Order: sequence, then C-alpha cells, then structure tokens
Amino acid sequence: MANFKGHALPGSFFLIVGLWWSLKFPLKYCHQKRKSNHMNHNYSRLEIAEAVIRTVFPIIGILAEQFVPDGPHLHLSADDHWVKLMNWQHSTMYLFFAASGITDILTYSVTYLPLGMDRLVMALAVFMEGLLFYFHVQNRPPLDQHIHSLLLFPLFGATACLFLEVILRDNIVLELFRTTLTVLQGTWFWQIGFVLFPPFGRPEWDQKDHGNIMFITMCFCWHCLGALCIVLSNYALVQCFMKRLKKCSGGEIIGIQKLKSGHPYHTALLNASDEE
Amino acid sequence: MANFKGHALPGSFFLIVGLWWSLKFPLKYCHQKRKSNHMNHNYSRLEIAEAVIRTVFPIIGILAEQFVPDGPHLHLSADDHWVKLMNWQHSTMYLFFAASGITDILTYSVTYLPLGMDRLVMALAVFMEGLLFYFHVQNRPPLDQHIHSLLLFPLFGATACLFLEVILRDNIVLELFRTTLTVLQGTWFWQIGFVLFPPFGRPEWDQKDHGNIMFITMCFCWHCLGALCIVLSNYALVQCFMKRLKKCSGGEIIGIQKLKSGHPYHTALLNASDEE
Amino acid sequence: MANFKGHALPGSFFLIVGLWWSLKFPLKYCHQKRKSNHMNHNYSRLEIAEAVIRTVFPIIGILAEQFVPDGPHLHLSADDHWVKLMNWQHSTMYLFFAASGITDILTYSVTYLPLGMDRLVMALAVFMEGLLFYFHVQNRPPLDQHIHSLLLFPLFGATACLFLEVILRDNIVLELFRTTLTVLQGTWFWQIGFVLFPPFGRPEWDQKDHGNIMFITMCFCWHCLGALCIVLSNYALVQCFMKRLKKCSGGEIIGIQKLKSGHPYHTALLNASDEE
Amino acid sequence: MANFKGHALPGSFFLIVGLWWSLKFPLKYCHQKRKSNHMNHNYSRLEIAEAVIRTVFPIIGILAEQFVPDGPHLHLSADDHWVKLMNWQHSTMYLFFAASGITDILTYSVTYLPLGMDRLVMALAVFMEGLLFYFHVQNRPPLDQHIHSLLLFPLFGATACLFLEVILRDNIVLELFRTTLTVLQGTWFWQIGFVLFPPFGRPEWDQKDHGNIMFITMCFCWHCLGALCIVLSNYALVQCFMKRLKKCSGGEIIGIQKLKSGHPYHTALLNASDEE
Repeated sequence: MANFKGHALPGSFFLIVGLWWSLKFPLKYCHQKRKSNHMNHNYSRLEIAEAVIRTVFPIIGILAEQFVPDGPHLHLSADDHWVKLMNWQHSTMYLFFAASGITDILTYSVTYLPLGMDRLVMALAVFMEGLLFYFHVQNRPPLDQHIHSLLLFPLFGATACLFLEVILRDNIVLELFRTTLTVLQGTWFWQIGFVLFPPFGRPEWDQKDHGNIMFITMCFCWHCLGALCIVLSNYALVQCFMKRLKKCSGGEIIGIQKLKSGHPYHTALLNASDEE
Repeated sequence: MANFKGHALPGSFFLIVGLWWSLKFPLKYCHQKRKSNHMNHNYSRLEIAEAVIRTVFPIIGILAEQFVPDGPHLHLSADDHWVKLMNWQHSTMYLFFAASGITDILTYSVTYLPLGMDRLVMALAVFMEGLLFYFHVQNRPPLDQHIHSLLLFPLFGATACLFLEVILRDNIVLELFRTTLTVLQGTWFWQIGFVLFPPFGRPEWDQKDHGNIMFITMCFCWHCLGALCIVLSNYALVQCFMKRLKKCSGGEIIGIQKLKSGHPYHTALLNASDEE
Repeated sequence: MANFKGHALPGSFFLIVGLWWSLKFPLKYCHQKRKSNHMNHNYSRLEIAEAVIRTVFPIIGILAEQFVPDGPHLHLSADDHWVKLMNWQHSTMYLFFAASGITDILTYSVTYLPLGMDRLVMALAVFMEGLLFYFHVQNRPPLDQHIHSLLLFPLFGATACLFLEVILRDNIVLELFRTTLTVLQGTWFWQIGFVLFPPFGRPEWDQKDHGNIMFITMCFCWHCLGALCIVLSNYALVQCFMKRLKKCSGGEIIGIQKLKSGHPYHTALLNASDEE
Repeated sequence: MANFKGHALPGSFFLIVGLWWSLKFPLKYCHQKRKSNHMNHNYSRLEIAEAVIRTVFPIIGILAEQFVPDGPHLHLSADDHWVKLMNWQHSTMYLFFAASGITDILTYSVTYLPLGMDRLVMALAVFMEGLLFYFHVQNRPPLDQHIHSLLLFPLFGATACLFLEVILRDNIVLELFRTTLTVLQGTWFWQIGFVLFPPFGRPEWDQKDHGNIMFITMCFCWHCLGALCIVLSNYALVQCFMKRLKKCSGGEIIGIQKLKSGHPYHTALLNASDEE
C-alpha cells in the first residue's frame, strides 16, 4: 500500500514491539541477576504470549495488503503479467515475521526446536525485509530511494545483532541494541509516511532537491538518538523501580553479577579463583 | 552447460546433500546429548561415506562438463583463443567441492589433518563458487544476471557460517543454518533452470521486464522460507522419533544439555557452580 | 565550518582524546595485572572526569558550529529552504559524541546502565559520524571527496572495534587499536584542513589532479603508521616506567598474566590444570 | 617497478614466508600438544630470527624501489609535481611489512608490547597493502585492473584472519588459512608478472579481451587450490615425520589434544567433567 497508512501500519507494529522489548529485557535481566527460578515458568508463558502477538500482527498486515480495494486479492498473475507486485512483496515481508513468531511459539512451547533457532529465524526475517527493500526502490525518485535505503541500516544492523545472539544468547547489551534498532525502524516508517505522503493536506516534498536528501540523512541520525534515549531511560526506570521494590541490599553482588552477564570470561576467572 | 540439465544436475546435488544433512545433524545432536560414545566409530564411518559421495558427485559433474558433445574435452586453448571457458569455469566449481570431499575423507580416516580444516576447505569451495558466479554473469540480460546474483546470498552466507563453524564446531543452529542454505541453493538452481530454459515447450520469459525481476526477488524469499520449513520439520521429526524410540525420562537434563551446546559459556558457569 | 578552523577543532579533540587514551589504557592494564583493587575507586573517578571532558568538548563544538557569524543560529528552516545544513550536520556529529560522554558518566556514576552500553553508544557515535560523512561529500571535487572518504576507514574500523569491545571488554589490544584509530582521525582532520584550506597563504591544491589523489592515499598510510608508533611507544614508556616504579620481581608471573588478558581461554585451561 | 622483476621480488618474498610458515606452524602445533616446555626458549629465538628476516626483506624492497635507475632516489616532489608516485606507493607497502617485522622482534625480545599486538600490526600491514592496491589500479586497462583486484581477496581475507588471531591466538586452522593466503599471494604476484610483462619474448596478452579476464578469474581459483594443497601436504608431512621421530604411543590422547586446540570450549568441558 503505497500511501500513508501502508507505512503507519508496519511503523506502529515495530514501535509497539520495540517499546515492549525495552521493558521486557531489563525486567528479565533484573530477575536473572537474582536467580529467581520460580519466575521461569511465567516467563515462558509471557514469551509465548508475545510470540502469538508477533504472529497475529503480520497476518493482519498480509490480509490488509491483499484485500484492500486495490489489492491483488491473492491473484499472483493474470493475462501474462504480474498482479500488484508491490503488495505481494509487502505480504512476503509480513510472512517472514509471522514465520519468526511461529518459530518462537514452537521454541517456547513444544521445545522440539533447538535454542537459538528463534533468533536465527528472526535474523532471517529482518534480512529478507532488507533484501526486498534493496531491490524494491530501484527506478524511483532520489528522495524516495534515499529515505527507504536508510532503512537498510537498522535492518542489516539488527540482522548482525540477532545472528550474534544465536551464539551469545541473553546478552543484555545486544538485546538493548536490537530493541533500539526496532524502535528506530518504527519511527522511521512513520517518518517515511510523513515525507512521501504528507497527511493533513501539507505540501509535497521536492523529491529531487539535494537539500532535502541531506536533511533526511541528518533526521535519521536524530531518530536513532531518540530511539536510544527511549530504550535507555526505560531500562533505567525498570532498574530503579525493581530496586525500590525489593530493597536488595548487596551492592557489590550486583556489581559482580553485572560483570558476569556483560563478560562471561570474567565469571570463569572469578569462579576459578574462588576455588583456588 | 547453459541448458536445463546443466542447472538441474548441481541443483539435485545440493538438494540431496541438504536433505541428507537435515537428517544427519539432528540425529548427531540427539546422540551427543546422551553421550553415547559407542556410536563414535559408526559416525566416523558415516562421515567417510558421506565424504566419498560428496567427492564422486562433483567428479561426475566435471566429466559431464568436459565430455558433453559441445564440451572442451580437456582442451584449454586452441589457436590463440580459450576453448569453452564456461564449461571450464563450471568444472572449476565442481573441482573445489571434490577437494572439500577429499579433505573430509582425510580428516576422518587418516587424522593427519587438524579438526576444523574440513570446514575451512568447504567454506573455500563455497566462496570460490560465489567468486566465479560473480564474474561469470557480467554482460548478460538483466533477468539472467539478477537470478544468478541472488545465488550469491546463500553462497556467501554459507561461507560465513562455515568459517564460524571452524571456531564453534558442532553448534546445531549453525549446522541447521548451513543446511537451509544448501537446500535453498539446490531449489534455486532448479528455479534458474525453469526460468532461463523453460522445459516442456513453455514460453520464454522476457529477460528485460522489470516485473519479472521483482517477482524473482520475491520468489527467492519464498524458496528461502520453504527451505527453512523443510529443515525445521525434519529436525522436529527426528527429535520426535528419537524420543519415542528411547523413552528417555530426564526432561530437565535435556534442557541443560540444550543450553550447553547452544551457549558454551553457560556450561562453564553451570559446571563451576556445581563444584562450589 | 568549511574552513581550516572547522577541521582543526575536531582534529584537536580526537588527538587529545587519543593521546590521553594511549596513556590511560596501558596504565589501567598495568594495574589490572597486579590486582590492585584499591585503585578501583580512583579509576572510577578518573573515568567520570574523562567522560565529562568528552561531553564538554562536543558541546563547545556544537555552539561553535551554530553561533559563528555565518552559522544557522539554531534556525533549521526558513522560507521553504533548509538553513546551513552543513553546520547542522556537523552539530549532529558532535551531538552523538556528547551523548556518548553522557552515557559514560551515567555508567560509571549511577550504575543504572549495563556495562558495555558505554562502548555501544560510542560505537554508534563513530558510526553515525561515518554515515554522515559518507553522504556529506557527494557532489564535490574528486580530491575533496577522496580525502574525506579515507576518513571512513578509521571511523568504521573504530565502530567494529568498539562493537567487539562490548563482548570482549578490557582487551588491551583492542583498546590500543581504538586509540590508534582515534589518533589517526585527529591527525587526518588536520591534514584535511592543510590540504583543502591551505593556511599561511600557501598555494591551493589542484583538486582534480590524479597525482594528488595518489599522494593523499599514501599520505593516509603514513599517518596510520605514525599513529601506531605514537601509541606503541607510549605503551612501552608506561610499562617501562611502572616497572621501575614498583620493581616487581616475578618475571614469569607477568608472562602468565599477559596470556590471561590476551587470550582468556588459556587462563581457563591454566586454572583447570592447576586444580587437577 | 612496473616490470617483471617488480612483481617477482614481492612474489618470492611472500612465497618464501608462506612456505616457511607451512612448516613452522605444524611443528609448533606438534610441540604444543606434547607440552614440551623446554622448547619455548628455542621457539622464541626462532621467532626473532624469522622477524628479522621479515624486516630485512622489505627494507631491501624499499631500497630497490627507491634506487633503481628510474626510481625517485628519495625525492618526493620536484617543481610542483610528485616524483614517481608508483615507486613511493610500493615503498610504503614494504614499509608496513618492515614495521610488522620490527613489532614481532619487540614482542618476542623485550616483551614491553602486549601479546596480540604483533598480529594486529601484521593485519594492518596487509590491510594497507590492499587499500593502496585498491586505489592503485584505477585508470588502467581492464585485464590489468582485474588481475590486480583479485589480489584483494587474499589480502582482505588475511586481514580478517589476522584480526581474529588477536583474539583466538595459536589456532592452528587460522594459522594454516593465513599461510595458504600468503602462498597464494606469492604465486599470484608471479602470475601477474607473467601476464602483464611476458618474459622470454612471449607475445603480449590482449588487455581488453573478455575471454582473458574470464580465464584469469578461473586461474586465480586454481592458484588458491594449489596453495591449499601445498600447505596441507606440508602439514601432513610434518605430522607424519614427528610421529615417526618420537613414536608416541597414546593414540587417544592425541585425539583429545586435537580437540583442545581446535575448540577450546570442549577442553573446558572435558576438564570440568574430569573433576566431577
């Protein structure tokens, strides 16, 4: 859907997921530090709930792309030409995120899938979105092309981050980085909508002006900084809230625990030296 | 061999290897978890058998490329010009996979080669295939160029994955990722054959139509999703089958073991804390 | 500020930070080896002082970019066109480094942020500088474009190095590598100033001469070698100085310690074999 | 020196270093497995000897580039133009390898430099060679450009490998990979000499023929396979020779040791399980 709504819908999806993660990961990290194992079962349920939502959202997206009045209505080709390939490409992007959601459900419920597979499928979903966008925007005006190609940075960044999480699972810094990129993607989709399809009867942007392209590049940096601020303040808020809730006294213990998850080698050293 | 068979042959090779791996790796992973050491000798034999097949296949490919009626028949140059360079380049690709097979045989039989070398040579084989393809498709029609260059993603992805396996050997997620990329490569070779050389007297594709290029990009994503589904369902089937076969009771033990191979640092922590 | 001062200011900033790091990291490494824990509090204070300076500097840069006589004076757009986008882009670059400084202050003082986040934000700051530079220099004369794009190597190199430090914190070699790239960036900013805006009434460089471009490439390599020499001699001086200061006798212990921080796996082996 | 000798000299340098490494690394690996600590002192001396040679060679190269009859004789600029920039660029490449040699000498003799720095400086030397080559070959005939740019693969591959060795020191597979790339570089320099400056009065190659470019790409793959074969057979020969020399009986011990250095995580597991 090459209009404002077609960008606002995925933008809202990524924004909601990003904001939710910016609360979930600090909370999970807080509990991990205290080894509160009785929470594990609840977390597992929470993960499944999240995965279900991350599956339902993209399915709504697919249905919207297919059955809007000018959509393809599940017809792929007719009379020797392809029908509404743009909508089909968007559907494919949503499809991968639905697949990622389903993988998460299977990983946390049936446990027939190996741990880490959920991250790999999510990495694949993000990469495929990037791949489709890369070939998607050729033969368009410069500003359109530039504003979409800036999206490739959070996409391929998140791919790299998720691939790393396959190996370094539950690293809080990587998780916060991924969250930041997801929030950034969400706000940037909204920005694309506002620039390419100005709502409220605002004037169109000149799509060939070099000044506009330079401004958009800078604007992207500001979005990135904004996303980072949101994620870090949410992290600090959760930490602060949890500390007051439990009044945990052992300041040094927290320090060591922090080192543990931040840098696993140190832990090995610490444990080993304890035994000596 | 720039015809349908020339793409079906390597496609079938990669498809068979990929499907075999999608059964072998889950099975190996299942046995590793139970530390059934008496299986080691059988596995070693199995690996050698696989390596022999992965050596014989490419040799057949080389012979086919060289001795088809319009092939070079091992002549490289004649009268100041190169003879059938396309066939020679295909032969070179096969040659590297044969070399990878031979390295595997040597690693598992004579043990004079260091562990990890087998993965490195396979990474090199896949990279060289990518390198040759990259320079192979220049000066061709847009669709031909695009459909071949999409092959570079599974090729360079598999190179990165295999290089990582040199360091993180026997990581089930990486192995399943590699398997997915191999199956994807196999089905994509078949797709290339169907698009560029339509069999059964179907009409030719317009090689310059932008719609066709957009469809092919999307089609590549579907192949990728299909390959992932095949590999994951085979994994789940093997896990399910093994569980019923042995009725192993210790649910928690499996959980811990999973963590072990998924994230080796955790194991160190677990073991260390056991000793305290 | 597209003039000599506009390049000398950031050049001096990076040069000072780089030279300070070339003393700080060897010193910290020296103390780590001796496990002198009573230094920790002082180090924490030192880090905060450094972070404050790394915050104040960029704020001065932002003010300079905004309030020079021909600056935008915080006006972003006027009469349907953007005001002084160059100055705004420079301000954005400074803004990220200020954000990195503030993150460091928060990490070392309030400890609500997870360890490693400071490195991630710094990586992001350096990456954003690279991103802005990449799109910054289009539509310029060849020499101008080339001399600025060489800056991308230390920038993206430092991004990769800092991202790796998130996982491998306190690795002395990575820290020295980052220091080298920072010094290189500082001297290269000065070089850009001297080439594009020759001070002292020197003649202008021909911006289209291929010889000049070739010389500048080579000159970049020399800067890199120079930066490396500075960092390594500072490291050696600090080591030498510390050795004489404390007259630590245990030569072999230092050897083992070196291995420890250089390669954490070895330590695990050493510790493990000690216990056997 | 844009002639046959100018390519044969660096080619021989890399070939000799590569062949030497293909003997040294397997030998070192063999001794490491037996923990023969009394060899350490001898190894240190050997490393210094190697480093001296790796310093002297490039210095000879610099002198040759500067003082050949048509060289710059250390003059950089004269009458407002640069003197013999090609020779100066080659000198710069040699200079970095000399710097790498000196760093090695310092690392193994004075021990004021941290372990891993030697690998980092070598990575930098190889990267700078690649950077200079990348900008070196612009504005040349297609074949000249292609044959030189193929050199970038072993160069950037070796950079990545050396950078990884900073973290994963003494990994035999990485060392053999680096050795292979060094041998490949050596033989490829000779190949460039033979193609661009045919000796013995052979006819010139057509620098614009697409067939020649395709052949050269394939030829590069063959060189790569050849280099791999040389390195692996030298490894096998050394292993075989050492086994006969010492008649070490414990077959299984060797198996475990292999796992140790191939994959350090396994060792931790093995050791940890021994203690349980």
